[in-house]
Amino acid sequence: MTLKIVGFAGSLRTASYNKKLLRVAAAKANALGVAFEEIDLSGVPLYNEDVERVGFPVAVQKMREAIAAADGVIVATPEYNYSVSCVTKNAIDWASRNPNVFTGKTVAIMGASAGGFATVRAQAAIRPILASVDALVLPTPEVRVSKAGDAFDADGALKDAALDGAVGKLVARLVSEIQIRKAGK
Amino acid sequence: MTLKIVGFAGSLRTASYNKKLLRVAAAKANALGVAFEEIDLSGVPLYNEDVERVGFPVAVQKMREAIAAADGVIVATPEYNYSVSCVTKNAIDWASRNPNVFTGKTVAIMGASAGGFATVRAQAAIRPILASVDALVLPTPEVRVSKAGDAFDADGALKDAALDGAVGKLVARLVSEIQIRKAGK
Amino acid sequence: MTLKIVGFAGSLRTASYNKKLLRVAAAKANALGVAFEEIDLSGVPLYNEDVERVGFPVAVQKMREAIAAADGVIVATPEYNYSVSCVTKNAIDWASRNPNVFTGKTVAIMGASAGGFATVRAQAAIRPILASVDALVLPTPEVRVSKAGDAFDADGALKDAALDGAVGKLVARLVSEIQIRKAGK
Amino acid sequence: MTLKIVGFAGSLRTASYNKKLLRVAAAKANALGVAFEEIDLSGVPLYNEDVERVGFPVAVQKMREAIAAADGVIVATPEYNYSVSCVTKNAIDWASRNPNVFTGKTVAIMGASAGGFATVRAQAAIRPILASVDALVLPTPEVRVSKAGDAFDADGALKDAALDGAVGKLVARLVSEIQIRKAGK
Repeated sequence: MTLKIVGFAGSLRTASYNKKLLRVAAAKANALGVAFEEIDLSGVPLYNEDVERVGFPVAVQKMREAIAAADGVIVATPEYNYSVSCVTKNAIDWASRNPNVFTGKTVAIMGASAGGFATVRAQAAIRPILASVDALVLPTPEVRVSKAGDAFDADGALKDAALDGAVGKLVARLVSEIQIRKAGK
Repeated sequence: MTLKIVGFAGSLRTASYNKKLLRVAAAKANALGVAFEEIDLSGVPLYNEDVERVGFPVAVQKMREAIAAADGVIVATPEYNYSVSCVTKNAIDWASRNPNVFTGKTVAIMGASAGGFATVRAQAAIRPILASVDALVLPTPEVRVSKAGDAFDADGALKDAALDGAVGKLVARLVSEIQIRKAGK
Repeated sequence: MTLKIVGFAGSLRTASYNKKLLRVAAAKANALGVAFEEIDLSGVPLYNEDVERVGFPVAVQKMREAIAAADGVIVATPEYNYSVSCVTKNAIDWASRNPNVFTGKTVAIMGASAGGFATVRAQAAIRPILASVDALVLPTPEVRVSKAGDAFDADGALKDAALDGAVGKLVARLVSEIQIRKAGK
Repeated sequence: MTLKIVGFAGSLRTASYNKKLLRVAAAKANALGVAFEEIDLSGVPLYNEDVERVGFPVAVQKMREAIAAADGVIVATPEYNYSVSCVTKNAIDWASRNPNVFTGKTVAIMGASAGGFATVRAQAAIRPILASVDALVLPTPEVRVSKAGDAFDADGALKDAALDGAVGKLVARLVSEIQIRKAGK
């Protein structure tokens, strides 16, 4: 059975570095024979319990179904003000609502930033958040793209071979962990 | 000159516990002769750099002007998934955009949650976030409302006198710190 | 082959609540046919790179060998000042020195506190720390013992059946994850 | 009245980068006419409540008295495993014991690391810790020394003028905040 991985970038910007990074990961997944679907967060509103009571908005429902149907999730998050972007956190918050669609999912995190610190604080901050939604988050390899404005070539590939290799290793580990847990159960 | 404090609750829910908590603090400020303005976050969209380039949306601009004109800020935040709500973080992210309107502001934080842990993880998580926007955040007293569904009476007052007193002490310290820094400069 | 789990409590106090909690977990492991060894941290000094260059102190070396030989690790940590105790963090820091003995280990975390917040901030703070040492940390179930002074009976058992059950479920999940990963590889 | 600032580096290593960084700050304080005392943490044992009950160890007592007598505190912390070093955290934990000697102190944080991320995760992690001990922590300027093995010259000065200037600005702000609060009270 083909494995299925979904992913989202925590940015609404059209030319988002994290969208580019996610697409690098998507290509690595496809190269391993794994299906990859990018979740579009552009229609997901800020979480509001009053709205939830009426029903999940369409974009939220689609995002929740995509995660629920996946074997694993890749989250590419910007860092804003030393934590994850709200686009990232808001997606997780909606996904965690009853029934929490992250339960039991294996998750890989990545991040790209324009500056020099490569989202390392956001990647630290997201770990308790993803633990709270019962996701099993891979600790390594870490994919940390700094100076992202110069990190990708015109085709969207990472210029730095070591960084590109790290994305490949992270995706391979994600696939491996999913397979191990499927086989072991 | 009259001091001016503004505040916001990081929730869009009409019957939000954190809105109630903020209004308790507002009354304490007024009782000290300090003007208080509650910032409405209901029209603030998720941060998007593409949108920012076109111009701050109206609700964002109003929020930014209110913070810029204030001597101090009170943030009442829910805890979602072990961190601050996105409504809280998103407001801070928009406020931090150039020019960062939090620079030099004295800030007090509070939180109310339906459960038993009283937003203590969110209050820990918000400290590096607010430091990144150059706000001077009061460390104590801490206002932590647990089981918020039963914490307020029909008039919106906190039933627990010690908790109500803590809000009073926090607002008094905020006012005192603002006055000290104004006088000392 | 018998699985082997090791654990440590991040407290030097003889009557430590976290040592009691760890022993509850040890009994659950034994009941599942899994060997459990409690690591004694009393002789482990504060990390000092000058000392490391001379050689790992005896207690450090023993701790490192115990972790290296284990299939999984249980960490029972107090919360001091909104983060993990130094006894906990210091053990992890020594263990992470080259070669990092946490690499690839599956880890379960627990915590007991005298107060009402049950180490929830320490359990959030430890997640990036354990990710940095390449440990795969279970997200759930969470074992959070509040008011620990009254939580254990004279025989060291948890008085609260639900809490005792949570320890059992956490240990069972740890064993299951180890077995799954062994079988899947 | 002469102001008095104390400081400590969270490392026991003789040639510690953070000790060097602290001494750069000490010289800046002296240049402003402010007394500076470096606290020696080499004899401070890992926190143990059983030991505390017998009495604070001599090195702990000296550290506590130095902090209690100071107007402000500078903390220079390494980053180990994405959080503060235990030497740093352990000093804060001992200082926080009843009576908490950090209460009401104004605190500046700095950090130096051998790698490229300049202790930014440790500086984020320390903020809730210092808030819990009721310290007022300056948010900016941030002093973040990366590649510390090459950052200091033979006399212990920071080679990079901008970085040296940031230390000067941080110390000047610490002194200014202390004076403002003294004058305003």
